[in-house]
Amino acid sequence: MAVSETDIALAARLADAAGAAIRPYFRGSFGLEAKEDQSPVTRADREAEEAMRRLLIAERPMDGIIGEEFGIREGSSGRQWVLDPIDGTRAFIAGRPIFGTLIALIEDGWPLLGVIDQPIIGERWLGVAGRPTLFNGKPTETRACRDLKGAILGTTSPALFDDHQLHAFEHLDAAVMSTVLGGDCYNYGCVASGWLDIVVEAGLKLHDFAALVPIVEGAGGRMCDWQGDPLHAGSNGEVVAAGDPARIEEILEALACRGH
Amino acid sequence: MAVSETDIALAARLADAAGAAIRPYFRGSFGLEAKEDQSPVTRADREAEEAMRRLLIAERPMDGIIGEEFGIREGSSGRQWVLDPIDGTRAFIAGRPIFGTLIALIEDGWPLLGVIDQPIIGERWLGVAGRPTLFNGKPTETRACRDLKGAILGTTSPALFDDHQLHAFEHLDAAVMSTVLGGDCYNYGCVASGWLDIVVEAGLKLHDFAALVPIVEGAGGRMCDWQGDPLHAGSNGEVVAAGDPARIEEILEALACRGH
Repeated sequence: MAVSETDIALAARLADAAGAAIRPYFRGSFGLEAKEDQSPVTRADREAEEAMRRLLIAERPMDGIIGEEFGIREGSSGRQWVLDPIDGTRAFIAGRPIFGTLIALIEDGWPLLGVIDQPIIGERWLGVAGRPTLFNGKPTETRACRDLKGAILGTTSPALFDDHQLHAFEHLDAAVMSTVLGGDCYNYGCVASGWLDIVVEAGLKLHDFAALVPIVEGAGGRMCDWQGDPLHAGSNGEVVAAGDPARIEEILEALACRGH
Repeated sequence: MAVSETDIALAARLADAAGAAIRPYFRGSFGLEAKEDQSPVTRADREAEEAMRRLLIAERPMDGIIGEEFGIREGSSGRQWVLDPIDGTRAFIAGRPIFGTLIALIEDGWPLLGVIDQPIIGERWLGVAGRPTLFNGKPTETRACRDLKGAILGTTSPALFDDHQLHAFEHLDAAVMSTVLGGDCYNYGCVASGWLDIVVEAGLKLHDFAALVPIVEGAGGRMCDWQGDPLHAGSNGEVVAAGDPARIEEILEALACRGH
């Protein structure tokens, strides 16, 4: 089933609702706690996800929900909304306006629609399978990258790799012109808009990557796992985004060097 | 000699001039090149520094200039303007609106005035020795940090440390709650405004750190090198910024563990 105009309008309302919940907490008192896995969570994360879930339950009672903070709500339509209220909670708590709310619509585990919303500086990427990606309502495209030696690579933190993944990442890092750290989901928006060439990460959950796929691919880029397979609900969390699909093979080759 | 109102007004005009030079290039075609040390530089860096130098030569012909891109212009007043047109060139080229223009006024090597200006989202920190730091024109303060275990630490990239520095940094990283990467000068503004607790870096040049000192200290924080000595033109580029001066001893103790 294709994505409808009402799906797209609902995704925009979800992003608006999350942003309205998050903005009052940015650079304010947000009640920081550590989750079981020691990752940080705040009242802003929880209230933004609650706002989105309320809307979905009212508007799409048959659709399932998979949320970072409040888990799974079973549905019966075969479709699920995948929610990460604040991707980049560390950036959020440090006062950086480049975290994002991630919203995806998946069917049979495949991402059909994705939103990256930055509610402080007002930036939004919208990707829908088979359509051109929009940045703040206008079509946006990845850029060509003729050579890995000229590429800008982004990754949130090398600390998120295990030893083998880090070894592989360092191969790629040595092959590109420059690497920027931090950035979270914002990096993938930058790939979609042709400002950044590659993002490589690992350990991502479905709520971290589902929204990114239609955005990067609808802008002319390619996303896959470190083996080159397309990303879906069962992927292992190793993620590559390349603005120029012609560079994918070289990227995967570098990432295949995982040491022993 | 104290900083005058005309010094402060001139610093604001310098930041305005740099911002006007930079904005047309952000997310556009900026002519990326690698410098001799392989760090990236763009037309935006050069034109922003040129704009500031023109203003200074017209308005303060007796003051010296130390600029990242065009070097030293000798003066005779005993004062020097220290300019970094784009601190965080990697962030700039990747499309992230959290790089900054750094402007400092130093006398006998000591920083008296500092500006961090983010020209895309319109954020400016101004610090003057002996005065409260301003963020977008309003007083801003660091926050208390009762315990390193609850601290948020920032650093641009562990790749900027040598092996001994990295060993020391990892001690501190293990002692805090959470570490965010990337950020460049923006991290120090976040410390001044009480959103981030600590920044630790190494390999900084005078143009990277001179502006930060009056900003962090005028907001109630403390800046020093890894031995606890105040930062001046002869410092070795190892930098600590702490929002809460009560945590400085523990930070320095962690950083003293440099391995062998």
